[in-house]
Amino acid sequence: MKAKVYVTIKENVLDPQGNAVQGALHSLGFGEVAKVRIGKFMEVELDTADRGQAERQLKEMCEKLLANTVVEDYRFELEG
Amino acid sequence: MKAKVYVTIKENVLDPQGNAVQGALHSLGFGEVAKVRIGKFMEVELDTADRGQAERQLKEMCEKLLANTVVEDYRFELEG
Repeated sequence: MKAKVYVTIKENVLDPQGNAVQGALHSLGFGEVAKVRIGKFMEVELDTADRGQAERQLKEMCEKLLANTVVEDYRFELEG
Repeated sequence: MKAKVYVTIKENVLDPQGNAVQGALHSLGFGEVAKVRIGKFMEVELDTADRGQAERQLKEMCEKLLANTVVEDYRFELEG
């Protein structure tokens, strides 16, 4: 079973990496760029066919390792 | 106009960060994790209402800065 995990910085937390990329885009002539926020996109393959189990495990993985829930939000989608 | 940009490592390119995360997940007891690939997820706000222009600009931004097209693929979605 495949999952897609999205980890994003919480709305009220500063994103210096995003600000740097926004500045670089402005320097390259993309003046219309009003905001950039950078997060992570992870593809995880699980050796299980049990959807409920996969969801429970993904939630636990996100809480324990994949996201820092103090400053980041996460969500995931299961495929197939 | 808001866009979501996904940058992923090409299928035939090694992903040491993904392998490290997979190893860490195994150490935490998630033995079912068969594969992890890590990419980037970017939210970009553009000060334009012209969808065609936004698409052209996003493509150019990805080619020039957001993705390294030698080893990474990208795709984006425009909202609203």
